[in-house]
Amino acid sequence: MLLIEKVLTLRSSEIFHNTPEAELVELAGILEELYLNPNETLFQKGEIGESMYFIYKGKIRIHDEDLTLAVLEENEILGELSVLDADTRSASATALQETILLKLDQEPFYDIMLANAEVLKGILKTLGRRLRIMDAKLAETKATPTEQPSR
Amino acid sequence: MLLIEKVLTLRSSEIFHNTPEAELVELAGILEELYLNPNETLFQKGEIGESMYFIYKGKIRIHDEDLTLAVLEENEILGELSVLDADTRSASATALQETILLKLDQEPFYDIMLANAEVLKGILKTLGRRLRIMDAKLAETKATPTEQPSR
Repeated sequence: MLLIEKVLTLRSSEIFHNTPEAELVELAGILEELYLNPNETLFQKGEIGESMYFIYKGKIRIHDEDLTLAVLEENEILGELSVLDADTRSASATALQETILLKLDQEPFYDIMLANAEVLKGILKTLGRRLRIMDAKLAETKATPTEQPSR
Repeated sequence: MLLIEKVLTLRSSEIFHNTPEAELVELAGILEELYLNPNETLFQKGEIGESMYFIYKGKIRIHDEDLTLAVLEENEILGELSVLDADTRSASATALQETILLKLDQEPFYDIMLANAEVLKGILKTLGRRLRIMDAKLAETKATPTEQPSR
């Protein structure tokens, strides 16, 4: 895969959308390509996870045993919380077809954030925005007449 | 205020709970003390915010005009999303009584994260956990019988 294809995959993800191009090139250089066959398991619910993945091509089913929680496609990401806190996977992930992933491990992810203020700022900005959106959604939920009032 | 009091205030907040003591001491050194009178406004909804605050003593009302959204007390924090993304304040904040705050600005916050991998990891771990909790809460909401099924 070309470096530029990896850069474009990173850029199209929410988490690196605010990261400058020079830093994306550096990040792209440490991504590992991963090829999955149909029905191949990427990770199981409950495993400790320290990597996040970008879907370059293909489809990944996120599931809890037989219950499908989501189907993720090209340019979507998975496992992004585990790269932050190295906690257990909250669901399993299995390829639905031949799938190419780009894998980013926690250690190089932290190294690159620590070396590049712009990468760190882009990621924290994205996380901040995500928390704001979720705060607003939860406030909405609480504001429905059957629930306690929004606080 | 003693440096050790500032350290204890930082340590009692969720965001710095995982930060090692040596780094808390460094962080405590850059906090600015802020004294508010009763009814004094800290910030208004819609203003650009680049600081977060730790409540050392007193009470702060978070509100949208006359509607009280929350009353925050000792050891609670406010404005923590603005220090991440320097976006506008989503509500106003006014002191209910004499209040002592510790103010942390975005720039020193980033500087200390970039200089201390442990601080950065602690904060990202906290943000990751917070996103996991909110994900779970939203999934719960969606799983209620009147709503669409959880995805």
